[in-house]
Amino acid sequence: MPDFNVGFVIFPDLTQLDFTGPFEVLSRLATPPSLSSPSAFAHSRTHIVAKTMQPVLSDRGLRILPTCDFDSCPQLDLICVPGGPGVVGAIADDKTVDFVRIQSARARYVTSVCMGAFLLGAAGLLKGRRATTHWAYVDLLPLVGATHENGRIARDGNLFTSGGVTSGIDFAFRIVAELAGPEVAQAIQLGIEYDPAPPFDAGHPSKASEAAIALMVRRNEPAHNSLQQL
Amino acid sequence: MPDFNVGFVIFPDLTQLDFTGPFEVLSRLATPPSLSSPSAFAHSRTHIVAKTMQPVLSDRGLRILPTCDFDSCPQLDLICVPGGPGVVGAIADDKTVDFVRIQSARARYVTSVCMGAFLLGAAGLLKGRRATTHWAYVDLLPLVGATHENGRIARDGNLFTSGGVTSGIDFAFRIVAELAGPEVAQAIQLGIEYDPAPPFDAGHPSKASEAAIALMVRRNEPAHNSLQQL
Repeated sequence: MPDFNVGFVIFPDLTQLDFTGPFEVLSRLATPPSLSSPSAFAHSRTHIVAKTMQPVLSDRGLRILPTCDFDSCPQLDLICVPGGPGVVGAIADDKTVDFVRIQSARARYVTSVCMGAFLLGAAGLLKGRRATTHWAYVDLLPLVGATHENGRIARDGNLFTSGGVTSGIDFAFRIVAELAGPEVAQAIQLGIEYDPAPPFDAGHPSKASEAAIALMVRRNEPAHNSLQQL
Repeated sequence: MPDFNVGFVIFPDLTQLDFTGPFEVLSRLATPPSLSSPSAFAHSRTHIVAKTMQPVLSDRGLRILPTCDFDSCPQLDLICVPGGPGVVGAIADDKTVDFVRIQSARARYVTSVCMGAFLLGAAGLLKGRRATTHWAYVDLLPLVGATHENGRIARDGNLFTSGGVTSGIDFAFRIVAELAGPEVAQAIQLGIEYDPAPPFDAGHPSKASEAAIALMVRRNEPAHNSLQQL
């Protein structure tokens, strides 16, 4: 049975939880928590892909080592592009955009978390598609030819795009359920005790204070302005 | 104003999301999303501490670079110990246990995620305390002198222990609210769009299938057996 290759594309100034959240879930396909029979995903492999093999620094100071570079990465079955302010630089880098475009052409699933949607967009992959991204950037989706779809995760055919940062965890469970079935997804959910209980209910603009929204819009202004050049 | 030093202790075979989840939240104290006044936590610094400066490999293949080693780490104000199967090896390593014990003696907050509780326990820090850990290990808490407290997060004075893996995110918001106030916590929550919507409700044994529970108990057996030697 051939490997099922899952790959996360990382770049300087990414928001690491966009990547590490779904990585924790999807990497568990490799040790299939099959309840009754061996899973096809015993052959799943998870790759952390970057332009070079040098450590990649997140926007908050986490330094991560890739497992392969663009040249040594196998054809991916699922490509996932995380977000963060570094998306602006990634979009300006032809090699990164080309890698995403070429891999996505043959991948079974093309996916993003948060602002990663704009790297897919820069590679021409969102034209005429329904998509989402971090709430502070949804107004920019038409610049890459996409229509914003409300919701934490947007699916359009083989394209999954998700909202800000932590939405990547929910997205990953959707994908696991599709690939390996709901029982496997639920076993992984139990394994990582994903029974969220945030002490506040303020994680979406529909629930947050005006002051918090204004602050976060201001915080995101530099990246928002840069993406407007798309 | 002195720095407020937050430190995560990492070790081989940790479960990376135990660490990267709360890291994403707590590292945002360093760029305080204060709504009205400059926050004391503009001086927050986040450290990733390991025995040596070599990359640390997670149980699922993520390689992380520390920012300091045990010798160069400043006195921490908040120490956080993540979990994973590597806790067994960390407990067997005197230098690691000593580091946790010595740092915790002067830290303002002593905290753990998942099986990290047992590293605190091995350092003698849970004697006579109420605590929690990953659901598959709560029966072992008495071995380190602790009483299991029900709930996703257990607080006993300056000690915060949390349940499996993803509970670390909820724990981090509790800490931010205590340190910088609920408005700051809510602004960070909005920033990372933490409005969880898991596609299934199976993240706790009280909600999961018998088959999933049995499978996960079996999966955790090797580490469970090792910790029984405590």
